[in-house]
Amino acid sequence: MNFVLRQLKLREWLDAHKLDALLVTHLPNVRYLCGFTGSAGNLLVTRRASSFFTDGRYTGQARAEVKGTRIVVPKVPTMLGAAAFVGRTDAQTVGVEAEHMTVATRSALRRMLPAGLRLRETQGVVEELRKLKDPDELSLLREAVIAGSKLMKPALNAIRPGASEQAVAAEIEYAARSAGAEAMSFETIVASGVRSALPHGVASRSPIARKGFVVLDFGVILQGYCSDMTRTVHVGKVGSDDRRMYEAVLEAQLAAVAAVAPGVEAGQVDAAARSTLRKAKLDKYFTHSTGHGVGLEIHEKPRIGRGQRDVLLPGMVITIEPGVYVPGRAGVRIEDMVVVTEQGCQVLTPATKDLIEL
Amino acid sequence: MNFVLRQLKLREWLDAHKLDALLVTHLPNVRYLCGFTGSAGNLLVTRRASSFFTDGRYTGQARAEVKGTRIVVPKVPTMLGAAAFVGRTDAQTVGVEAEHMTVATRSALRRMLPAGLRLRETQGVVEELRKLKDPDELSLLREAVIAGSKLMKPALNAIRPGASEQAVAAEIEYAARSAGAEAMSFETIVASGVRSALPHGVASRSPIARKGFVVLDFGVILQGYCSDMTRTVHVGKVGSDDRRMYEAVLEAQLAAVAAVAPGVEAGQVDAAARSTLRKAKLDKYFTHSTGHGVGLEIHEKPRIGRGQRDVLLPGMVITIEPGVYVPGRAGVRIEDMVVVTEQGCQVLTPATKDLIEL
Repeated sequence: MNFVLRQLKLREWLDAHKLDALLVTHLPNVRYLCGFTGSAGNLLVTRRASSFFTDGRYTGQARAEVKGTRIVVPKVPTMLGAAAFVGRTDAQTVGVEAEHMTVATRSALRRMLPAGLRLRETQGVVEELRKLKDPDELSLLREAVIAGSKLMKPALNAIRPGASEQAVAAEIEYAARSAGAEAMSFETIVASGVRSALPHGVASRSPIARKGFVVLDFGVILQGYCSDMTRTVHVGKVGSDDRRMYEAVLEAQLAAVAAVAPGVEAGQVDAAARSTLRKAKLDKYFTHSTGHGVGLEIHEKPRIGRGQRDVLLPGMVITIEPGVYVPGRAGVRIEDMVVVTEQGCQVLTPATKDLIEL
Repeated sequence: MNFVLRQLKLREWLDAHKLDALLVTHLPNVRYLCGFTGSAGNLLVTRRASSFFTDGRYTGQARAEVKGTRIVVPKVPTMLGAAAFVGRTDAQTVGVEAEHMTVATRSALRRMLPAGLRLRETQGVVEELRKLKDPDELSLLREAVIAGSKLMKPALNAIRPGASEQAVAAEIEYAARSAGAEAMSFETIVASGVRSALPHGVASRSPIARKGFVVLDFGVILQGYCSDMTRTVHVGKVGSDDRRMYEAVLEAQLAAVAAVAPGVEAGQVDAAARSTLRKAKLDKYFTHSTGHGVGLEIHEKPRIGRGQRDVLLPGMVITIEPGVYVPGRAGVRIEDMVVVTEQGCQVLTPATKDLIEL
């Protein structure tokens, strides 16, 4: 990972925004900028240097992982150590990550810092850099997506009427762990029968219905990077209404994928899915956004939603996941991860999108 | 769950601290006070009433779960809806949860509220109520602890030299899921050989060593409540040094359990473990606190650490988990959950603490 280049880009931002330093406290941002994967550490990036602060539990790990950055293990709590350090630099204005720092931490930090030093709230600075994945990240994301996709097989083997949704999730997660995943990227969704109409139907104790859709939405974390995919399968022979619903969602998904290209606004991709569903008179049942960026976190920029003006660029990795949810009846969602390329996009998720009847 | 009583206690606190309302944004606190288990919702508790704000995805779930509280599903983002609502009450001073609200959210909230209304930072208000578990909670915690303890069997079956630590974690987590756990309460720790000397040795790709300790630290979430236990087992026949280390930790754990009683300060329990290890000249290798409260979250109040003045009271549920970590060589930790009773305490974790050789 090219941490030097990443920190350089952050320094350009500091220059442009007249900040002397940014105190990075959001762990995925810390990891992105210096490589630390532990659960406690702050990174201070000034215009000239960067320093990483952690506690005694992580001394060895920091030495092994952190690159291009001075490592400081203060004897006092980490934030206090970082504050003391800032006080000794010539920094006048230091940015904090307002979306991640709590009000209590900010108050404590303010008390620790010299009165003349100004804290300025920033939002999404490192997240903006993280939108564009570099080649190392793309290769890790491809690996994660493939590992995730391989979980369809144990999932399909586990689905049978009467088995609980949680039992299906257990098989998916067991296969993921056995394949070396650090964790799932979010709570596994297994939603059967009428529960398929819940956009966020986390696996419950409910049994798989004798007949109807099962929405499977899951992902793994592999070497820090998240995968995310959804497939909807049908238990029993699919009737004509359900088939029409499935085909409409698939058509919308393909239309949105086809709309992904450099220079396109995120909202246009969302509109491609929505207008396809409108033709099938199902757009009112599509109640969420079409997708989101994925990387070290499961939800990153850009958001692929209605009217979003973010412009897609080569190297962005996003999900395309339209869905239709008819309350009390049934739901279908189909989701791939794609990477924006120079020409258009490449679908990363290899699993079939043909309707599977079990 | 007696949500009415819980909210009543919060109102007494509001009265005593001259606040007109508390805006509860930390989800475990929201769940504790009104029963909502979803992932997006805020609760406003005023001196006279309480209102729960969520978005359209959770309308049905809120109606099914939320008790003793008015449910509001604003058409605008939830926080904006809550702010508009606060603006219409006669509240002059509203508390926010400073340890959980981000700086960005607070700034946004400030802009939405009438200029005359004061926001006051509070810390640990609902957490303080949550320290004392009521009978419903104790019964759920007992269930979670028993479910967690049952995972020792699949764990022991999976441990063999050469298998990866992650593979052992996979078996533990599969058994947990199959038994109906919603999730693990934290990243499963399986730390073998020299890795047993890492106090926080999350299961890695490393193989189980041919000989030496394996620290197993895991917990399940069952109906929202967390379990937490650690056992250390030995692969191969244990030598005299390792046995001495194990016995010293076990003696310290038993001494700390014996010190738990109503009226005792948390620091005295910690001291009981530490002084026992001092006799074995191992106290310098005991580098963390003796324990912590457990409930809806894995780490709750009180902290059982050096010099902590929190007084133990009947109904508190805490872990007792001393450990010894000799860097580069080996580590041992033994952990039970206990509930403070009128007389002393009751150990909840049924698994044996005899040294197991595999």
